[in-house]
Amino acid sequence: MSKKLVLAFSGGLDTSFCVKYLKEEKGYDVYTAIANTGGFSDEELKVIEERALALGAVEHITLDVTNEYYEKCIRYMVFGNVLRNNTYPISVSSERAFQAIAIIEYAKEIDAKYIAHGSTGAGNDQIRFDLTFQVLAPEIEIITPTRDMLLTRQYEIDYLKKYGFEADFSKMEYSINQGLWGTSVGGKETLTTNKNLPEEAYPSQLETTGEKTIELGFEKGELISLDGEFYENGADVIRALEGVASKYAIGRDTHVGDTIIGIKGRVGFEAAAPLITIKAHHLLEKHTLTKWQSYWKEQLGNWYGMFLHEAMYQEPVMRNIEDFLESTQENVTGKVIVKLRPYNFELVGIESEHDLMNSGFGQYGETVEEWTADDVKGFTKILSNSLKIYNKVNGNL
Amino acid sequence: MSKKLVLAFSGGLDTSFCVKYLKEEKGYDVYTAIANTGGFSDEELKVIEERALALGAVEHITLDVTNEYYEKCIRYMVFGNVLRNNTYPISVSSERAFQAIAIIEYAKEIDAKYIAHGSTGAGNDQIRFDLTFQVLAPEIEIITPTRDMLLTRQYEIDYLKKYGFEADFSKMEYSINQGLWGTSVGGKETLTTNKNLPEEAYPSQLETTGEKTIELGFEKGELISLDGEFYENGADVIRALEGVASKYAIGRDTHVGDTIIGIKGRVGFEAAAPLITIKAHHLLEKHTLTKWQSYWKEQLGNWYGMFLHEAMYQEPVMRNIEDFLESTQENVTGKVIVKLRPYNFELVGIESEHDLMNSGFGQYGETVEEWTADDVKGFTKILSNSLKIYNKVNGNL
Amino acid sequence: MSKKLVLAFSGGLDTSFCVKYLKEEKGYDVYTAIANTGGFSDEELKVIEERALALGAVEHITLDVTNEYYEKCIRYMVFGNVLRNNTYPISVSSERAFQAIAIIEYAKEIDAKYIAHGSTGAGNDQIRFDLTFQVLAPEIEIITPTRDMLLTRQYEIDYLKKYGFEADFSKMEYSINQGLWGTSVGGKETLTTNKNLPEEAYPSQLETTGEKTIELGFEKGELISLDGEFYENGADVIRALEGVASKYAIGRDTHVGDTIIGIKGRVGFEAAAPLITIKAHHLLEKHTLTKWQSYWKEQLGNWYGMFLHEAMYQEPVMRNIEDFLESTQENVTGKVIVKLRPYNFELVGIESEHDLMNSGFGQYGETVEEWTADDVKGFTKILSNSLKIYNKVNGNL
Amino acid sequence: MSKKLVLAFSGGLDTSFCVKYLKEEKGYDVYTAIANTGGFSDEELKVIEERALALGAVEHITLDVTNEYYEKCIRYMVFGNVLRNNTYPISVSSERAFQAIAIIEYAKEIDAKYIAHGSTGAGNDQIRFDLTFQVLAPEIEIITPTRDMLLTRQYEIDYLKKYGFEADFSKMEYSINQGLWGTSVGGKETLTTNKNLPEEAYPSQLETTGEKTIELGFEKGELISLDGEFYENGADVIRALEGVASKYAIGRDTHVGDTIIGIKGRVGFEAAAPLITIKAHHLLEKHTLTKWQSYWKEQLGNWYGMFLHEAMYQEPVMRNIEDFLESTQENVTGKVIVKLRPYNFELVGIESEHDLMNSGFGQYGETVEEWTADDVKGFTKILSNSLKIYNKVNGNL
Repeated sequence: MSKKLVLAFSGGLDTSFCVKYLKEEKGYDVYTAIANTGGFSDEELKVIEERALALGAVEHITLDVTNEYYEKCIRYMVFGNVLRNNTYPISVSSERAFQAIAIIEYAKEIDAKYIAHGSTGAGNDQIRFDLTFQVLAPEIEIITPTRDMLLTRQYEIDYLKKYGFEADFSKMEYSINQGLWGTSVGGKETLTTNKNLPEEAYPSQLETTGEKTIELGFEKGELISLDGEFYENGADVIRALEGVASKYAIGRDTHVGDTIIGIKGRVGFEAAAPLITIKAHHLLEKHTLTKWQSYWKEQLGNWYGMFLHEAMYQEPVMRNIEDFLESTQENVTGKVIVKLRPYNFELVGIESEHDLMNSGFGQYGETVEEWTADDVKGFTKILSNSLKIYNKVNGNL
Repeated sequence: MSKKLVLAFSGGLDTSFCVKYLKEEKGYDVYTAIANTGGFSDEELKVIEERALALGAVEHITLDVTNEYYEKCIRYMVFGNVLRNNTYPISVSSERAFQAIAIIEYAKEIDAKYIAHGSTGAGNDQIRFDLTFQVLAPEIEIITPTRDMLLTRQYEIDYLKKYGFEADFSKMEYSINQGLWGTSVGGKETLTTNKNLPEEAYPSQLETTGEKTIELGFEKGELISLDGEFYENGADVIRALEGVASKYAIGRDTHVGDTIIGIKGRVGFEAAAPLITIKAHHLLEKHTLTKWQSYWKEQLGNWYGMFLHEAMYQEPVMRNIEDFLESTQENVTGKVIVKLRPYNFELVGIESEHDLMNSGFGQYGETVEEWTADDVKGFTKILSNSLKIYNKVNGNL
Repeated sequence: MSKKLVLAFSGGLDTSFCVKYLKEEKGYDVYTAIANTGGFSDEELKVIEERALALGAVEHITLDVTNEYYEKCIRYMVFGNVLRNNTYPISVSSERAFQAIAIIEYAKEIDAKYIAHGSTGAGNDQIRFDLTFQVLAPEIEIITPTRDMLLTRQYEIDYLKKYGFEADFSKMEYSINQGLWGTSVGGKETLTTNKNLPEEAYPSQLETTGEKTIELGFEKGELISLDGEFYENGADVIRALEGVASKYAIGRDTHVGDTIIGIKGRVGFEAAAPLITIKAHHLLEKHTLTKWQSYWKEQLGNWYGMFLHEAMYQEPVMRNIEDFLESTQENVTGKVIVKLRPYNFELVGIESEHDLMNSGFGQYGETVEEWTADDVKGFTKILSNSLKIYNKVNGNL
Repeated sequence: MSKKLVLAFSGGLDTSFCVKYLKEEKGYDVYTAIANTGGFSDEELKVIEERALALGAVEHITLDVTNEYYEKCIRYMVFGNVLRNNTYPISVSSERAFQAIAIIEYAKEIDAKYIAHGSTGAGNDQIRFDLTFQVLAPEIEIITPTRDMLLTRQYEIDYLKKYGFEADFSKMEYSINQGLWGTSVGGKETLTTNKNLPEEAYPSQLETTGEKTIELGFEKGELISLDGEFYENGADVIRALEGVASKYAIGRDTHVGDTIIGIKGRVGFEAAAPLITIKAHHLLEKHTLTKWQSYWKEQLGNWYGMFLHEAMYQEPVMRNIEDFLESTQENVTGKVIVKLRPYNFELVGIESEHDLMNSGFGQYGETVEEWTADDVKGFTKILSNSLKIYNKVNGNL
């Protein structure tokens, strides 16, 4: 019987151990795969491939799903102004669904009977992988050696050494996950509840003390240009914005939230481009959507973010919410002016031909022609009817 | 028949005109009243009183409702983390309801048959006053000369001069409304959609370039101490915090939103203490509330803010929402550490005996004893059931 | 200057008076129009036309918008299982928006400067007409003689007689509005709060004491067949179902709710086909949608119904909600078996290839193969984590 | 070491087997307990006790938590008009939480180290028991022989016979669970999706063909009287109403819904008193609450029902929702008149001094004095502002 197994391989200690262990101890034919959603450079991908083969993988494949991730997820997170707990742009974690999908599709394609990943037993990622794998290929068995065996790092290093494999697996002070939609940073301070990460823990460092005004262009809710330069695909403009804004140490914060497994989690992140994009998009919406469009978008956008975070990307309601969100973006077109400053940014304003504030209709606080004082009196009188009745009946007068 | 009229008097040009006009042209006995919700100093109130009497008011009264405003409104806005459109702490506008209530109660007390205010016909305040007056005293007639007559400033100034009253009514470049829960600043740039207020338009100016770490103490959701100093009433601790934080030019932003009358409005504000209080409170909640408490608080808190903004403070559901919000604050007790920086602040962390993250129970991302890898596998398996069924039935496999 | 006026004409006393009054007293050239959304038969429409011309209308037009009403409104009400206050299928009132749109479009087409309707000043219809007219043609002036003049019936009858027009305008005991999506019946008992309409007040009467089982076919959420017979358009199958079910006196109830103007209203209705269609559709959804699809559909469907009822059909969020609802109907295809009985009906069951209950996957309460007892134990353990932590921290153990 | 074990004992085959098996094979000291939430008569409880002792229980105890169940749960389900999926009053399943709590409290009281229940592995009850046990006493081990061993009925019967215990364990055609808040009936037809239970499957049978009008009295949302007779406690008035209404075969339906474990479930139920109580209460609310109170009650009531159904009674947000619901009931006092008919009932009307429809204020559709035609025109004009602006800006005119 076939012992073909696909391993989601990141090149780190845990998955490196898995390659060797699954091959040597369990006799699997290990096919390694990495799904890139935009967080890895070509150089990094090459190093990872070489390591996989050096460890004994039958084959290694890099699956590039950056565009799919953008089209099927980031767009909607922007449409929905998705910030988990009003703070966290669901950075790396939203990428997991697309990595899991790419890898399980690959496993099905090469007719693997087994699929493995290296997530540990106390986090969200294990659920994201397990659940996606199970839903899309219930017939493929899931193998998770590191979760099952509770091994120490030293054990894994020694094991690899025993098989002649050595690499720099020295533990970093912080666990850093870099992605297209932000970088998460965990360790030390994030395990407390009263300390934040120090400056130096962040990959990007403050490089300037000045200010800079930039202009973001949106079309039907999607970021399409930066300072007048248009980009063919969504990932590129995000990278360009990140390049400019990360020098200002913008978009850093600490996310405190509920994990899928019910415990609270705390993690630092830096996400300059996501934060600026979402806030700029939201401002443009305040000018171009009606009150009730904004109201319902907030409900559904928050739910979308929660489900994305909680491994529920496959739930059919997510497709319905995406259709709703897309439907609201018809007029969300225009420019947003943003001023970058060290550690923060200011939304300066917008320009849009769909701006509901710039209509030539009555302006807030100014003299108007479209209605009279009597109209407002009538409005208020009718508006107060239900409250007058309530007071009359319930004797509060 | 009695011509007793109560005028909500602010000392500005419009209401000054009203005193004289209502007395001389309409023959009313004008009683002026100002309701202080914490935005006026004793000196300012004295000046206002003198002006009222100089203009010919029969009597002038200052109604202090600061504590009532705190107890019946600010508390709940903090409980609900209320930021309209995710931005605006509903600064001055939330005070209007309490000013209107105090003034109409006074009118009923002195048996006035008429009540007057000086709001114009294109803003929210007219609705807030009219509606509150009508609901609480439908039998008292509302008089609004400035709204009805659409007068120019010059006409009003000339009119007053004709009656021998002169004062410095020179138009300020910006219209500034200072209150306990923030200061709104409107004019020039806020009438555009692509410019923000300049630095100098804000009452508070940046006075330092350094950083400062402060500690806020909360008890059952209420801010009770600053840097270890406890305050007897809510208004005082807010003022103390404002005193410290306003030097950092924190809490400035531009609110874009929907007015009660359906047009978009844009206004600048500075609200250092409200912003810091709400964000610190929210962080403490992330540590002490469950996911679903946070979820429902967000829905109801946002609605509370919307209704407060839209003159609906009297609506009975507001009392129900207040009861809900208060019910959620049982364990929202602890300290929040905040670092102030020029133009922004960072939430450093919290300390609380109700911290759900500091429970000695399994910690996110670490080895745990409370459950096993198999438990999580079982969890994920059951969690995936509905999606597996959906895929099986609808042939997406 | 043109005195061309379009009058929304129903043939009743109020609008008959309007034709004559607007022509004779005000000198308008009165063009009458009736928009049929499926509630009028050809015979009725002919009588109405004759009356209009007899009263002196320059021209009369019948605008048939039945299909538009079905396509743009009824479909979505079914998708959303819309029952206002869990009771009322928003019968006649949902038709008003489409009648108003048709008439204002006609007025623009013939370049009328004025538009008139006969709604009184204490109901919802006046808002529905006024608002739709204003939004779609702010330049056309709205004329409402009966609302403005508060005339008695006798005055109107005498006025018409004076001009030589006589007809049977005897007041009916009940005011009945028949429409495609149900018939409303108001008067006498509905003005009390403790009595219901008597049997004889309903247009349809109980004609049988037996039972009858029928089968409704749905495709992507739309009712397409009855007892195996397929219908080309939505209005026809609704009429066919009404023909069968109204003999059972099904779908009668009294709606108590909030009007747009803030007072409570109470009205009887009979709506056999709408009630059966909605309940059958909802049952099919229980079998074919996931829990969270149903959850969000309920929120958005209820809002859709509220806004439809409250003259807000034009609000852009309605288009977004329609897109959401349509998105959820992908798999809502199948048959629903319904048993009709005097005064009520029973949903017997469904047959659908998208039935999530009939998946060959584990069945509720029976032995299953897809998971083990240990899986459920693991599930429950993880599910209980947050509550265990809460109890541990907050000392309730 | 102590082998003291508490078994949740119902007297059925599964738990009878458990007593013997846990004693003989596992050596536990089995203490049996039954928690009565109002579904068992004294006679039934006596039979159950005798059986427990005959099977070898060390002790048997009956824990009466009827009043607690009413006070802590049924009240709130009525306040919230809780019908799962708009259909099911969460009959027996809501009782499980209180049974589980009573039994785990008893186990803690007698210092048992183990707790056992007889739920199978494919239903909701196992989660309700496991989760409540774990949350309230994580230190007590849970034992579930029938779930773990997947035994057949015959095996269990033979096993008991081997130990000399015989009883009538013949399988009933339907599995019936009788409770205070309704009776669930499962089996045969409920396992299909296109058939309903036959008449004879229901415990209550239609006993009359006539009609009967009854009057329910509510005080602050609680049912307190029936036909003028007042009851001291909530359970009694429910029983009295059930006694009257069950003769009409009212309140029968089939619930189709999502189980906690993700599969769809279908079950028949009869619940005359719950259905009538909830619908009558809802009608009284339509007359006494404002639109927005009803709106938010619906959201929170539905969530309350969902969480109750899904074993989440312990979640802290449930206490917050209860406080909200209670807060809304201040004026929900009055009488509701209901007409009972075979298989259904009609809400005739209400009488209440808090009736917002009976205020002497303007009445729907009639002439009014509280506002004028011009007031409504002003109202509509202002109300249409946002839509006019939207159309003007987005060129749909």
